[in-house]
Amino acid sequence: LASRVASIPPTIFSEMSSLAVRTGALNLGQGFPDVDGPPSVVAAAAEALRNGANQYTPGAGIAPLRAAVARHQQRHYGIELDPETEVVVTTGCTEAIAAALLGLVDPGDEVVVLEPYYDSYLAMIEMCGGVRRPVTLRAPDFRLDVEELRAAVGPRARVLLLNSPHNPTGTVLTRAELQAVADVAIEHDLLVVTDEVYEHLVFDDAQSTEGHVPIATLPGMRERTLTLSSVGKSYSLTGWKVGWATGPAPLVDAVLSVKQWLTFMSGSPLQPAVAHALDHEPDWPGRLARDLQGRRDLLCDGLGRAGLDPRVPEGTYFATTDVAHLGWADGREFCLALPERAGVVAIPAQGFYDDVDAGRHLVRWAFCKEAAVIEDGVRRLETAD
Amino acid sequence: LASRVASIPPTIFSEMSSLAVRTGALNLGQGFPDVDGPPSVVAAAAEALRNGANQYTPGAGIAPLRAAVARHQQRHYGIELDPETEVVVTTGCTEAIAAALLGLVDPGDEVVVLEPYYDSYLAMIEMCGGVRRPVTLRAPDFRLDVEELRAAVGPRARVLLLNSPHNPTGTVLTRAELQAVADVAIEHDLLVVTDEVYEHLVFDDAQSTEGHVPIATLPGMRERTLTLSSVGKSYSLTGWKVGWATGPAPLVDAVLSVKQWLTFMSGSPLQPAVAHALDHEPDWPGRLARDLQGRRDLLCDGLGRAGLDPRVPEGTYFATTDVAHLGWADGREFCLALPERAGVVAIPAQGFYDDVDAGRHLVRWAFCKEAAVIEDGVRRLETAD
Ligand SMILES: CSCCC(=O)C(=O)O
Ligand SMILES: CSCCC(=O)C(=O)O
Repeated sequence: LASRVASIPPTIFSEMSSLAVRTGALNLGQGFPDVDGPPSVVAAAAEALRNGANQYTPGAGIAPLRAAVARHQQRHYGIELDPETEVVVTTGCTEAIAAALLGLVDPGDEVVVLEPYYDSYLAMIEMCGGVRRPVTLRAPDFRLDVEELRAAVGPRARVLLLNSPHNPTGTVLTRAELQAVADVAIEHDLLVVTDEVYEHLVFDDAQSTEGHVPIATLPGMRERTLTLSSVGKSYSLTGWKVGWATGPAPLVDAVLSVKQWLTFMSGSPLQPAVAHALDHEPDWPGRLARDLQGRRDLLCDGLGRAGLDPRVPEGTYFATTDVAHLGWADGREFCLALPERAGVVAIPAQGFYDDVDAGRHLVRWAFCKEAAVIEDGVRRLETAD
Repeated sequence: LASRVASIPPTIFSEMSSLAVRTGALNLGQGFPDVDGPPSVVAAAAEALRNGANQYTPGAGIAPLRAAVARHQQRHYGIELDPETEVVVTTGCTEAIAAALLGLVDPGDEVVVLEPYYDSYLAMIEMCGGVRRPVTLRAPDFRLDVEELRAAVGPRARVLLLNSPHNPTGTVLTRAELQAVADVAIEHDLLVVTDEVYEHLVFDDAQSTEGHVPIATLPGMRERTLTLSSVGKSYSLTGWKVGWATGPAPLVDAVLSVKQWLTFMSGSPLQPAVAHALDHEPDWPGRLARDLQGRRDLLCDGLGRAGLDPRVPEGTYFATTDVAHLGWADGREFCLALPERAGVVAIPAQGFYDDVDAGRHLVRWAFCKEAAVIEDGVRRLETAD
């Protein structure tokens, strides 16, 4: 194995989903829904297949999808984009993250990143030879500490890798928090790469937020922000892996410069269907969010009854709990024992921390499952020995 | 732009396909067919969409596809593979190449590679900080010179990146040539990464070959060879970008270790359809090859009449010609002028050479197009000023 990957552990999501398959346990781990997205979108993909959308698309993605992404950013956030130069289609947000970091981070560059972080951030920063400078969202509230953020910006800081709505904590950064991030980015001339895949999955009872605010909309930020998202979470089609990066042409070009060599393009028959989703099902993600809010409450109430008092998340698919309350010092051991104890799989969050102690006893639970599944899951947890 | 990509030119295929779209010229450049692959395979994808194959698959690909790839290697070549550990599904062969090199090549490692090389090889070797050690297939015959191969293996050689049937030359390496490669690989303890995407597109009148021979089938080679292929060329579905890497578990694991961070997975509804193609349409690629042979002859005869005597290729989608015969010293200038002169787009091969002079006047033409298109194209070339 090349040294750039030798020390990176495999993704926890594969490990835990395999465990679920092997044990037959209920999978409240990896974040994917058990009901597919809009029938009209699935039908549009079937039609594209039949109509011959089966050969290479342009490397940047088909023009109608780039235009639909631009319209999406305009409609929801008032962000104006030139679809020719300011939008690139990627193989899910994962490839957008990989290509952005490979395209922007030189060995030795510092990357400021919210901790806990999604595990591909760690892997790709490693692979680039970058230096992680984590800013910890601390339990139980998981809010941004601006002093900690300022302290994390070293002399070689180049990229600030943001994620809001935030996986795994469910925190949605407020406008005030985002303004603090923007101030730091502008002061230190940082590029901001922001993973906004959960942009539409924000709940309407969160006191602390006006919903999702893209940091690109803050004054002075558009020109330094690369915004990443995808169809997967917004439209419950996680396996399609059609995502995009938007922002100023030089940053979008950095993504394209790399991704042309990683995959060239992907999903030719899915791209027209994703354009259809963005253009013709604009209200679907909002309905999903409202529905998901009820399932969030089912899960959180159940976790509470099982002695795992969660902080109710403001967005995303996930709630995070502290298993120390149940007498478990180590969340990974808890998760490895859980299929046998309760027939449930969850995700230990400790791998999402540089400071392992800060996350040792934290466990993430997904509520993007049907209500009956969540009810079954929490019943199993309540009655576990 | 990060330094790892700053000096890599953009892929010539995007440049030339954009030129074709912009000028309305006939695109004999980028290698994609104008007729889609088997209807039963397209129908299988539509069915998978409806049946809910729309969420994340395992990172290594769905089990039925891994099993189908293993059966394919067994059926065609007698190679036995454990689908659990010796097959990984990728986002086309492009991602397999990227992940293999990122997973196996450390900065300063030498990569021995046939020249002319597909442009993603150059880009990914650069991105890895590897050192290219090209072995030139020299015009007009484009055969392997074993002495040149031996001379290219330096002290830090680690990977030999092979490609047969070979893009862009159309050379299919003979068993004797492959044995020479194997001897060198074994003597110097090299890993062989072999791009065999054109494995089924070999013509039956090639005197020099018994068809495609995977180098993994040669004695002592299985344990050091990572074999890459995809559905795209074999089944005329280039936009699906479903590929695979097969070989010993540690090499397959190197690909998985990287690709889990590049894309995680892709194409969930396409994967069952690709399994269907491999299992239920095993004769389709052979029929395509026989049909393609006629179109190769149409193109080569026409190129000959236009004064561009090509070497008739033994495999792939492509024929290569020397435009010096027409008085053009530079193939890139020839190709940039061609849409205006003749309404045709072709690919200059000089970017596929370290030794630019060796390829300066070479131009590649694709014959994976309908006969009428090829006839139209050669007529335009014959009557160009
Ligand atoms: C690509 S696997 C991870 C899916 C996901 O977004 C999550 O569970 O956090
Ligand atoms: C991914 S673009 C290149 C397609 C191809 O294989 C070729 O034309 O060589």
